[in-house]
Amino acid sequence: METIENLKWRYAVKKFNTNSVSTADLNQILEATNLSASSAGLQPYRVFIVENATLRKELAEGSFNTQISESSHLLVFAAFDKITKGRIDSFIAYLAKGRNVPEEALADYKTALVSGLLSRSDEENFNWSARQAYIAMGTALIAAAELKIDSTPMEGFDSGKFDSLLGLKEKGLRSVVTMALGYRDAVNDPYVALNKVRLPLDEFATFIN
Amino acid sequence: METIENLKWRYAVKKFNTNSVSTADLNQILEATNLSASSAGLQPYRVFIVENATLRKELAEGSFNTQISESSHLLVFAAFDKITKGRIDSFIAYLAKGRNVPEEALADYKTALVSGLLSRSDEENFNWSARQAYIAMGTALIAAAELKIDSTPMEGFDSGKFDSLLGLKEKGLRSVVTMALGYRDAVNDPYVALNKVRLPLDEFATFIN
Repeated sequence: METIENLKWRYAVKKFNTNSVSTADLNQILEATNLSASSAGLQPYRVFIVENATLRKELAEGSFNTQISESSHLLVFAAFDKITKGRIDSFIAYLAKGRNVPEEALADYKTALVSGLLSRSDEENFNWSARQAYIAMGTALIAAAELKIDSTPMEGFDSGKFDSLLGLKEKGLRSVVTMALGYRDAVNDPYVALNKVRLPLDEFATFIN
Repeated sequence: METIENLKWRYAVKKFNTNSVSTADLNQILEATNLSASSAGLQPYRVFIVENATLRKELAEGSFNTQISESSHLLVFAAFDKITKGRIDSFIAYLAKGRNVPEEALADYKTALVSGLLSRSDEENFNWSARQAYIAMGTALIAAAELKIDSTPMEGFDSGKFDSLLGLKEKGLRSVVTMALGYRDAVNDPYVALNKVRLPLDEFATFIN
């Protein structure tokens, strides 16, 4: 199975070489990411692809993740800090157009979304949106691996600083997870030779018959 | 690109036919899921595959998601409700064995994990674990689609009831997301014919040059 082979091939790269990922490849990874499963189809997150070297140096400052600046591209996944009635309205309008139906045909769906999402706190909806963004991040990893493009998923960054440097707050977004893309430095990255260690399948997964 | 084609092919099935997913296929999906990217390699979640029809009927009771019982298999992704020192100890011991190094070689890594994870509240670590589980759920969807096996990711279930019926609490786990697996009923599922609507790529993803 290709997905298994791609996942076995990938690892969290510590040291990238200086080769750049092409725009065509980047666009394929982003297209796959945009097709990720998303609860209710709402896609409550966005992706930022940081190429600017100065900005990436600033983002990397004080972090032990040198991959932030020393990779081909940095992807930042950012989730909406709240879900508003306006966002649901726009989503339904866009969905109706995409499905070629009048908005009224989606009235029940809209009511369910409004009552389900707007009854929760902003923090609950942000956490939900962040989880959706993680699905997308996982898709991006798999898509990159299919193209034999390496990646490093990274948490533990200073999200306040990222939000401020990338202008996310003004867009109602908060950075939740990042990913460096590029090509492994197979000579100088000691992690390239390590076994990928995963749980025995029968400890990871339990059948209830 | 295969991942793009697989993601375009899939949709959240509303009505499954009565065909069963084979054990061989299930095992491939689970193997891929077990290979999902996971922060620090810790895999702080587990997957339960519910086959038992009576149990699935109970789980589906009162839910609008008939797929819980009316699909071939139900996958339940459950995250650890806390991260303990003992869990980190076992993980490091297992990792050392898998990498064929003495545990002492991983001492710095262990210290980083302990200080990073145990300084957070149980609720923070649960939310983090849940996000990791969502990466795995996304992997399972893609793996299933590669095998032309249909799926429905589902939130909005009664997690307390699921935890109790599946005996998760005793295992220190909390259900966070579920997925039905099976084969679409292409004749009777009206959703099969709907366009998949996703954001325009330039609204979803922003390049910062």
